[in-house]
Amino acid sequence: MAKIRSLDLDIREYMLKLGIQGRKASRELSRASTKSKNHALLTIASSIREAADVLKTQNDLDLVAGKAKGLDAALLDRLELTDSRIEAMAEGLEQIANLSDPVGEVNNMRYLPSGIQVGQMRVPLGVIGIIYESRPNVTADAAGLCLKSGNASILRGGSEAFHSNQAIAHCIKNGLKNAGLPAEAVQVVETIDREAVGQLITMTETVDVIVPRGGKSLIERVSEEAKVPVIKHLDGICHVYIDGEADLKMAEEIAVNAKCQRYGVCNAMETLLIDSSIAKIILPILEQRYDAESVELRGCEKTLAILPTINSASIEDWDTEYLAPILSIRVVEGVDEAMDHIHKHSSNHTETIVTENYTTSSRFLAEVDSSSVMVNVSTRFADGFEYGLGAEIGISTDKIHARGPVGLNGLTSQKWIVLGTGQVRV
Amino acid sequence: MAKIRSLDLDIREYMLKLGIQGRKASRELSRASTKSKNHALLTIASSIREAADVLKTQNDLDLVAGKAKGLDAALLDRLELTDSRIEAMAEGLEQIANLSDPVGEVNNMRYLPSGIQVGQMRVPLGVIGIIYESRPNVTADAAGLCLKSGNASILRGGSEAFHSNQAIAHCIKNGLKNAGLPAEAVQVVETIDREAVGQLITMTETVDVIVPRGGKSLIERVSEEAKVPVIKHLDGICHVYIDGEADLKMAEEIAVNAKCQRYGVCNAMETLLIDSSIAKIILPILEQRYDAESVELRGCEKTLAILPTINSASIEDWDTEYLAPILSIRVVEGVDEAMDHIHKHSSNHTETIVTENYTTSSRFLAEVDSSSVMVNVSTRFADGFEYGLGAEIGISTDKIHARGPVGLNGLTSQKWIVLGTGQVRV
Repeated sequence: MAKIRSLDLDIREYMLKLGIQGRKASRELSRASTKSKNHALLTIASSIREAADVLKTQNDLDLVAGKAKGLDAALLDRLELTDSRIEAMAEGLEQIANLSDPVGEVNNMRYLPSGIQVGQMRVPLGVIGIIYESRPNVTADAAGLCLKSGNASILRGGSEAFHSNQAIAHCIKNGLKNAGLPAEAVQVVETIDREAVGQLITMTETVDVIVPRGGKSLIERVSEEAKVPVIKHLDGICHVYIDGEADLKMAEEIAVNAKCQRYGVCNAMETLLIDSSIAKIILPILEQRYDAESVELRGCEKTLAILPTINSASIEDWDTEYLAPILSIRVVEGVDEAMDHIHKHSSNHTETIVTENYTTSSRFLAEVDSSSVMVNVSTRFADGFEYGLGAEIGISTDKIHARGPVGLNGLTSQKWIVLGTGQVRV
Repeated sequence: MAKIRSLDLDIREYMLKLGIQGRKASRELSRASTKSKNHALLTIASSIREAADVLKTQNDLDLVAGKAKGLDAALLDRLELTDSRIEAMAEGLEQIANLSDPVGEVNNMRYLPSGIQVGQMRVPLGVIGIIYESRPNVTADAAGLCLKSGNASILRGGSEAFHSNQAIAHCIKNGLKNAGLPAEAVQVVETIDREAVGQLITMTETVDVIVPRGGKSLIERVSEEAKVPVIKHLDGICHVYIDGEADLKMAEEIAVNAKCQRYGVCNAMETLLIDSSIAKIILPILEQRYDAESVELRGCEKTLAILPTINSASIEDWDTEYLAPILSIRVVEGVDEAMDHIHKHSSNHTETIVTENYTTSSRFLAEVDSSSVMVNVSTRFADGFEYGLGAEIGISTDKIHARGPVGLNGLTSQKWIVLGTGQVRV
C-alpha cells in the first residue's frame, strides 16, 4: 500500500488492463443485488473509520510533500484529511447505502393505442473514469456513488494526494471483498504518470464516461483530448443578485456567507450584483462585514461612488473565478440588467437572487440558464450533500445529460422497455 | 423558394450568421408561451396540408434527380413524399401541439433538513443542429419538436431532398410568422455545400447539441469532427430472439413483421436468434414466409442443417445492417447464448425476445443493454410515434443523456432550483 507503482509496466498496457478489468466487473456489478452493494458500502465506511489514524498518517506524507512543493493555501485545504472529513467520508458512504437503488427502477410505464406497454428502466452507464486533483475524499465519494449505481469505476486522483488515495483504496478493497463483489469494481490507478490520464480518456471501448474534477486547466485538457463523453464544469463564477425588494438583513447574511464561508470552492460567490435603489444602504454595511473577513473588494464605477476607498474592477474581474478572498461588485438597474450581466459572465454554475417580490423571483428562476438557480439562499448550498443526493461525483455545467450536482441518477441512463402480447406494426 | 442559394456568400460566414441568429431566437423561444408555440405548430400543419400539391411537385424534382443520380431503392423510398406521408407530417405536428409543454415543468421539489426546498426545472437545451439525409419529413418533425421544447433549430437536410425541404421550410416560416415567433427559430440551411456541415458541428458558441440522422458514414464523420455534443446512433443491428418457450405463432408473426414490414429503417431486424429446442419446428415455417417476401436467408451451421438450401452466414453478417431483404439466422442454446450474441454483435438499438416464460423475459429486460428492450413485440415499434412521443428527432444509442427514440424530453435538460428563506451554510 502507498508505494508508487513501479513504472516498468508500460502505462498504456497497464491502463488498457484496468479498462478490460473494469468492463468485466461492470457486468457483474450491473446485476449485483442492492443488498450486496449496500453491504460493501457499509463495510467500506467502517474500514475508513477504523483506519482513521492510518489515513491521517498517509495524508501527512502528502501534506508535507505539498508544502515542500509550495502548493497554495486553497490546495492544501482541499488536500487535508481532518477527523471531521474522515467521518464525513464514512457518513457519505452510509448515506449512499441508505439511498434507494436507482438500478432497475421503472418509470412511466403506460399502455399505448397499439396495445404495447412502454416505459423506461434505469440502468448503469457501465465504466466511469474519474480524474480529480487534491481532495482525497473524492476517492471514497466517487467509489461509493459508482458502486451504488452499478457502475465500475477507474479513479485517478492527483499525484499530490497519492498516499491518501492509496490508503482509502485499501479500505475500499476490504469492503468489496467482504461483500463478494469483484475487486476490480473500483480501481484506483497506482501510478502518478500523467500519461495514465491521456490513456483513460481515449479508451472508448472500455470506458463509458469521464468525470474530471479539479482546476480549469485539468478540465480543459481532459475535454479537449477526450474521446469518451465527459461530464464536467470548467468554472464556478457564481453570482448573488440583491434585488431592490430584498430583505436587507437576509441579503447581508447571504452575501457574506456565499463569499466567506469557504473560499476555494466552486459554489462560492465571485460577483455580487446590487440593485441601485438599495446600494447606498447595503454597500457600506457589506463593506464592514467583508473588511472583518479581509475580503478585497473590486467595484464598478457606481460601487466606487458609494465605497470610494475600494479597488476598481477591471473587465477581466467579471470573468474571473477567484477561489480566494476577493469579490467583484456591480451596481445594476433592476433584475433585467442583473440577468444580462449573469448571462454574459456566468459560468452557468449557480446564481441566487435575494428578493421578496414574487414576480421577480419567478422570472429569475425561469430565465437564468444556470445549473442551479436559487431564491433567498446562499450559493454555497449547490452541493450533492445539501441537495440530498448522498454525495456528488461532480457538478456539471454542461447542458446535456446531468446538470448541477451529479449524484446516483446522473450516473445512470434510462433504456426503453416495451411489453406486448404479439403486436406487429401495420 | 427552392432555388439553391448563390454561393457568393462565404459558407463559414453564412453558417456563423445562422448560429448567431439561432442563439438570439432561442432566448425568445425559451420564454415563449405554450399557446404561441402551439399556435405556430398548428399553423405549420395546415400550411403543409394546403401545400400538399406544391410539396409533391417539389418532391418530384428531387425524385427525378435522385433516380438520374442512381440512388438505390431504400434511399428513394425514404425520399418520397406521398399523400399519406404529407398527412403524417401534419398530424405529427398536431400531435406535438397536443403534448404537454415540457418547459418549466418542476419535478421532485422537496424540503431538506437545512430548510431549503430543492427540485428540478425542465429547460430547453438552446440551439439544436440537425443534420439529416434523404427523408424530407424530418424537416417538419425536427422543427416541430425543437419548437415545442423551446429550442431554436438549424436544419441541414440532404442535397437529394433540397427542393422538398425548402418547400417545407416555407410552410414553417408561415407558421412562425403567424404566431409572432422569430423567423430564425427554425432555420433550414439554404446551401447544399457540404462545408456547411463542417461549420455547424464546430460552432460551440452558438450550437448546443447536434443530432445527425442518416447513414453510418454521415454519422461517423459528424461524430469524429464535432466539437458540439452529439446525440446519435450509428447502426440499427436489431435482434429478435425466439425462446424455447415462445408462442410459436406469435413468434412467426413478429419475426416476419420485424424483417419485412419495411426494409430501409433502423428498427428492422437484421439477425434472428432461435432456441435450438424449437428451431426444427419454426425454421421451415419461417423459410416459407420469408420466401414469399423474397428475403434472402443466411444461416449458421445449425440453421443450415435444418434449411440446407439457404446461404451460409459469414462472420461479417452478424455485424451488418442490411437495410434490405436479407436476414441472418443463428440457432442458439437458450437465453444466455442469445444474450451473449446480442452483447457481442448488437448496435445497442433494439432487441426483442419472444417467450411465455416469466423469469426468462425478466432477465432479458434487465440484462440486455440496448436503448430499447422488448418482450413479445416487433422491433419495428422502436419509434417516437409508437412510444407516444409525438414524433422523434432521432434514436440515440449513446449511453449518456437520451437513449432510444428522442422526443421532447430528450431535447431539454433539467436545472436545479432552490428556494429558501435566508438559509446560509454553517
